[in-house]
Amino acid sequence: MGKSGRSMFIYEKMPSIISFFAVVGTKEGEGPIGNSFDMVLDDDRFGENTWEKAESKMQKEAVYGALRKAGLSTKDIDIICAGDLLNQCISSAYGLREMAIPFLGLYGACSTMAESLLISSMAIAGNFADKCIAVTSSHFCSAERQFRFPLEYGGQRTPSAQWTVTGSGAAVIAMGDYPKSPKIKRVLAGKIIDLGIKDANNMGAAMAPAAADSFLRYYENSGTSPSDYDLIVTGDLGRIGSDLLKELAYKQGFPLGNNYTDCGIEIFDLEKQDVHSGGSGCGCSASVLCGHILPQMINGKYKNILFAATGALMSTVSSQQGESIPGICHIINIVME
Amino acid sequence: MGKSGRSMFIYEKMPSIISFFAVVGTKEGEGPIGNSFDMVLDDDRFGENTWEKAESKMQKEAVYGALRKAGLSTKDIDIICAGDLLNQCISSAYGLREMAIPFLGLYGACSTMAESLLISSMAIAGNFADKCIAVTSSHFCSAERQFRFPLEYGGQRTPSAQWTVTGSGAAVIAMGDYPKSPKIKRVLAGKIIDLGIKDANNMGAAMAPAAADSFLRYYENSGTSPSDYDLIVTGDLGRIGSDLLKELAYKQGFPLGNNYTDCGIEIFDLEKQDVHSGGSGCGCSASVLCGHILPQMINGKYKNILFAATGALMSTVSSQQGESIPGICHIINIVME
Repeated sequence: MGKSGRSMFIYEKMPSIISFFAVVGTKEGEGPIGNSFDMVLDDDRFGENTWEKAESKMQKEAVYGALRKAGLSTKDIDIICAGDLLNQCISSAYGLREMAIPFLGLYGACSTMAESLLISSMAIAGNFADKCIAVTSSHFCSAERQFRFPLEYGGQRTPSAQWTVTGSGAAVIAMGDYPKSPKIKRVLAGKIIDLGIKDANNMGAAMAPAAADSFLRYYENSGTSPSDYDLIVTGDLGRIGSDLLKELAYKQGFPLGNNYTDCGIEIFDLEKQDVHSGGSGCGCSASVLCGHILPQMINGKYKNILFAATGALMSTVSSQQGESIPGICHIINIVME
Repeated sequence: MGKSGRSMFIYEKMPSIISFFAVVGTKEGEGPIGNSFDMVLDDDRFGENTWEKAESKMQKEAVYGALRKAGLSTKDIDIICAGDLLNQCISSAYGLREMAIPFLGLYGACSTMAESLLISSMAIAGNFADKCIAVTSSHFCSAERQFRFPLEYGGQRTPSAQWTVTGSGAAVIAMGDYPKSPKIKRVLAGKIIDLGIKDANNMGAAMAPAAADSFLRYYENSGTSPSDYDLIVTGDLGRIGSDLLKELAYKQGFPLGNNYTDCGIEIFDLEKQDVHSGGSGCGCSASVLCGHILPQMINGKYKNILFAATGALMSTVSSQQGESIPGICHIINIVME
């Protein structure tokens, strides 16, 4: 992309993430980082009569929450970049329709929060917008119904399966004098990588090669290496995908150290909460970033991180037609000055 | 958005549309502008064993065709912005996966080609990329299966229904000295507008208010009026939606004249081809723009146009849950210098 070669872009003037808000479900609230989130639902139905409407409402709450924390209203926002996992991205469309903010709908599966930050920051840095919001969501119950089986069926989950996070995260991006806000320094758009994995219950394995490809391009373009960052966090590779990524990264000559983790591993206690390989869904990386990681940057724990959300670009139809699962991974470098 | 107020952006240095290519199906090839398209399929299966794979292949052909006409290869492209109507946007993911181009997946229903041009032009104008591709597709048979009934069911279509276009259009956007290429002058991102229409067989009515909202914001922000353009073309409102838009535009004080048409009306002979209210699908506006309109700009017929692709942001699930249909409309102003 542009000045730094076709892979990566470095912002001369860095957009700030001036506000963020995370809403999660009950199970996520009971997890190891449950206290981090701005809002934890008592009931994942969230007062609605369908799971899809509950998910829309979470996304709406996340946006209003982020606006409230920044002292802003919907009228202050030029563009909202949003997405989710559901068919035709209905959580975003219905969740955000009352806001009357110019809307760019995105689909990058579980990578969507990084894609959303990438496009938002580009709009801000290019002076096409003064303030943008990036928001994504997922919901365990709406995702199970759509991608696997309705909950009532009581299907058994394979050991490699991941558990879709019920959650949403929203971030407000702006240019200006925000010395205490995390800033977006570099962004890299991922390529579609498909090494032929066909097991829809092993998304981590399908996405790990895409993460490896993006990291390699990122390090080569930025002239940095994993040890330059105090946190490298993938979107939701889960335990299996993370282990695969470590192996691939080692072979590529950029081994990942103790500064590496995965949002899908952080959000749940993998053993006690019976989530098998870990969390997933584009609400996973969004809520972990907005609820857990960005606050720790402001508190001084992290100064330079890589947020690398990963996505599996398949559907039930492509799986039924015997297709393998293409993966993608977008990388956002976030810093404190 | 930025300098021109929150609604619209005007490019000081305008990105050029340096190449474009359109592929359509058999029925579209038999329509009134059938001779315009670069490629017309003999068989809408396109040598594949599923409709979805045929759609992916169309999108791939459109991209390779646009690259070929520009003397470029996939390696010359920094970002590809792509989308389609299918669940999880699989036509784009599978159609483009072999190309190894950084990929931003979009979902804006039938408005996606305008969204794709908007984000591509922003990436180019902001110097985040040197060359981008915008591409979208739709396929009558894959869309019927997904949104309505499988073809084998032989469902009856209501008079207000539209016919999803089998087609794909791709455009290469770049900055530089391209005096003979159409240029993107202004872009406006649409808001989600929902006036409560619930009839999924009358998408035109659901989308027309979104188009009216975007046009009003566009004229007010740009200080222009409909008569300043030699062509104003909506994405695919069809006959019913177009008539509604004309009524709304008249009430708003910006009446549309003879320079107004709709891609969904242009592509078919509405009477003879039994398509009821007209064509639709994000392959409709993409193929009409890339196959019919842009070539006429180069030939001198049009110098200043508005391309306003419209989308209905619903899914079968939202319809089953009794939801109304939110619409959206993004506007791209394209000029010849």
